[in-house]
Amino acid sequence: MWTKCHRFNGLLTVLPRWDKPLLYRYYGRQTVSSLFIPMMRTSDQSASASVSRKTILENAGLLKQSRPGLYYILPVALRAMYKLIKVVDEEMTRIGGSKLGTPCLIPADLWQSSGRWDTLGAEMFKLKDRHNRHYCLGPTHEESISELVGTYLNSKNMMPLRLYQIDRKFRDEIRPRLGLRRAREFWMKDMYSFDIDKEASLNSYEIICEAYVRIFNRLGLNVVKVVADSGAMGGDTSHEFHLIADDGEDEILICDQCHKAMNMETLKSGDVMAECNLCEGKQNKNIQKYRGVEIGHAFYLGTKYSKAASVTYTDENNCKVYVEMGSYGIGVTRLLDAALEVQSTCNKIRWPSVITPYNICIVPLGSPKDNSSQQLLQLAQQLYDKLAVGKLQNEVVIDDRIYLSKTVGPGTRLRQATLLGYPYLIILGKQALQKQGYIELEDQLNGSKQNIHIDNIVDHIQQVYEKRDICTL
Amino acid sequence: MWTKCHRFNGLLTVLPRWDKPLLYRYYGRQTVSSLFIPMMRTSDQSASASVSRKTILENAGLLKQSRPGLYYILPVALRAMYKLIKVVDEEMTRIGGSKLGTPCLIPADLWQSSGRWDTLGAEMFKLKDRHNRHYCLGPTHEESISELVGTYLNSKNMMPLRLYQIDRKFRDEIRPRLGLRRAREFWMKDMYSFDIDKEASLNSYEIICEAYVRIFNRLGLNVVKVVADSGAMGGDTSHEFHLIADDGEDEILICDQCHKAMNMETLKSGDVMAECNLCEGKQNKNIQKYRGVEIGHAFYLGTKYSKAASVTYTDENNCKVYVEMGSYGIGVTRLLDAALEVQSTCNKIRWPSVITPYNICIVPLGSPKDNSSQQLLQLAQQLYDKLAVGKLQNEVVIDDRIYLSKTVGPGTRLRQATLLGYPYLIILGKQALQKQGYIELEDQLNGSKQNIHIDNIVDHIQQVYEKRDICTL
Repeated sequence: MWTKCHRFNGLLTVLPRWDKPLLYRYYGRQTVSSLFIPMMRTSDQSASASVSRKTILENAGLLKQSRPGLYYILPVALRAMYKLIKVVDEEMTRIGGSKLGTPCLIPADLWQSSGRWDTLGAEMFKLKDRHNRHYCLGPTHEESISELVGTYLNSKNMMPLRLYQIDRKFRDEIRPRLGLRRAREFWMKDMYSFDIDKEASLNSYEIICEAYVRIFNRLGLNVVKVVADSGAMGGDTSHEFHLIADDGEDEILICDQCHKAMNMETLKSGDVMAECNLCEGKQNKNIQKYRGVEIGHAFYLGTKYSKAASVTYTDENNCKVYVEMGSYGIGVTRLLDAALEVQSTCNKIRWPSVITPYNICIVPLGSPKDNSSQQLLQLAQQLYDKLAVGKLQNEVVIDDRIYLSKTVGPGTRLRQATLLGYPYLIILGKQALQKQGYIELEDQLNGSKQNIHIDNIVDHIQQVYEKRDICTL
Repeated sequence: MWTKCHRFNGLLTVLPRWDKPLLYRYYGRQTVSSLFIPMMRTSDQSASASVSRKTILENAGLLKQSRPGLYYILPVALRAMYKLIKVVDEEMTRIGGSKLGTPCLIPADLWQSSGRWDTLGAEMFKLKDRHNRHYCLGPTHEESISELVGTYLNSKNMMPLRLYQIDRKFRDEIRPRLGLRRAREFWMKDMYSFDIDKEASLNSYEIICEAYVRIFNRLGLNVVKVVADSGAMGGDTSHEFHLIADDGEDEILICDQCHKAMNMETLKSGDVMAECNLCEGKQNKNIQKYRGVEIGHAFYLGTKYSKAASVTYTDENNCKVYVEMGSYGIGVTRLLDAALEVQSTCNKIRWPSVITPYNICIVPLGSPKDNSSQQLLQLAQQLYDKLAVGKLQNEVVIDDRIYLSKTVGPGTRLRQATLLGYPYLIILGKQALQKQGYIELEDQLNGSKQNIHIDNIVDHIQQVYEKRDICTL
């Protein structure tokens, strides 16, 4: 029963002993039966196209609300989130970003010295520890990062410094709504830049905004960078990134002439549609209104937080100089939610191609009564082993639930695979077992179906993925 | 200044305009200058071998305490942590584990219905939201997961179900100490198994414990599985996994005869050394005492939590049956901390080879005054581009701080590279530029140094890494 660990070298065969059909589950390949994807049955789903986004994601087994604003992120959606994080990491590394982790529990004195303990008010979750010391659950980390960097910064050579984290944040929303979009616990990527002067800081600002644009482009999203208001954050330059979506909470104006955009909130003139504030004062009637979901925000902060936390360096004249800071956020869970919503329908989730949770699903049809189903499952396993190499190593999954045909028949399995939006479905019917075996390949991105000979399918898919930008875990 | 995003296709050159030497930083390669590794200077470090582990990790720029029990995890250590998480993910996927995310904020009623709201008492961080509803910050998630699974479970075919997460946990330790080992905010991997009966549940127990052993083996750690006490968790079978370490907080007894181990706490007999409880009652004097750090724990829970949350399925006789649960934890940050501690000295961090943050550091020597230093940096970049492919793509880093030679001379850079424990150091001196250019390759795992011809070094390293088990991000 219990043993010194070194005895267990190598792989152990881990087959459950108690239920024969479940033998399928554990052979080291990824299978639908071992994934937790609690989909609602067709009968539970509204067929209406007006079904809300939250319902789509809950019906597909991606999300589950625990309490208002608090969500379980279920396995398939979590995989997409980790891929999204990887895309962000790649782009941040490229601009010299260094990733770290800060505690969620932030001591009150830090926020008191910046003056934000009171200004954020009821939006913050506040609590006490057993020694009666006060904390908040971090909604953002300007104060923490300034404290950290201030401890170490001693030379201007350490700058430009671009520190970021991708982690949970907390905000006690008065009315949490719209699923992950306005949640009380959510994931955010927050970056902070430290530079020697304003010019350098604005240069960092540009570089980071450009990296944000690359992220949104890789996700294939229609995102607009708009002039924004700095609000309680401080500083005098600020931009938001908005995903254009019909049910966005913000109103965005885009000028046809200068191709620039602004948030309705920032408008000074009352007569919105009469002029573009950004076209050098020219009269312009061609301003379009859109609705947007804010998924990113950039702030040039100046020295507000570096003064509060004494983040300084010594210049040539032996003077202490406060460093200039910027703050940059991307709402990771909000982005995931909004990106899914704008492209999905109630019958089908459409993932941004680069962050699709799994790229290929192999669906052997048949049922336990059927003699050929065991052969089809074996064929599926052979195909899996050929496909799941290199870039696609962790990207293939087999729907092995043949033994469940009473509750999950072939039709249901196909419908579920369509709903989950795997880019490729490989469907194995009986003709796959014949000598001139053909297999049905469904490309869900462009909707095409074709019969391919079993010997050609692996090459076909690998060629496609050689060029395709995908994130793998 | 601000533009519609689709304009920015492709890569942008992102060179800071204001300081020429810093041009080195941004060429898409990973460099030490852009990483935030705030090392203490030699003069600040105690040369004594008795320097504490926490000090070692803080001196090396891996960790920084924010408040007692709350830590910043700095970039190099964070990378190791993510690799550790990847190792755990791989082994969990192999046994059919499905990863999800639960909220940190857990509503009080869940813990009240299991009866643990009061039993954990002051160890839990508790708080209220703006609507005066009570929550705790999750120290563990039996209640949450039961609630989630109970919503969906309707057939025994959904089991065995093995759900896990790797995330932050909170515990209001009365005396946080020993760095990440006993922190108030820490990362834990927690898995929960759901099975149809006790036999199946104990089978899951075995399978998951075996996976844990594989994880510890891959990390090369001397971990022992010991009989433990279930405590407040419930259930009647429980084991701990202990890393043998001189400064461990627990006392472990290992019997030379049966090779089994137990925690001192579980001993019934007063005379510890006289008998092994597990050798079928035989007298045995050969019991060795060790100190251990608890890094994992497995509990067979029975139906305690499934009863509280009504997690049932309907059997053949149309009866509701409570499912059997198990709970399995690995302290991720504690494991990282303990693994580093047992192998490191005050002059050198020794990482478990599979989770080394970066595998290769290229150190061009020289200084800005030196004409050859620019050439050495170029050579380093060429080597980088050849090495950083395939498995090693994100595993190479260049110490490009040649321009900082006043503050960080070649000697300091070599000392820092040694301290950080890169498995391979490639040191480029002037002789590397000569026609018969030789390069110094230092293998820090076995301590050997050799001069290798510049044309052979890439093959040499790639051959080593073909066989080596490493995690890449």
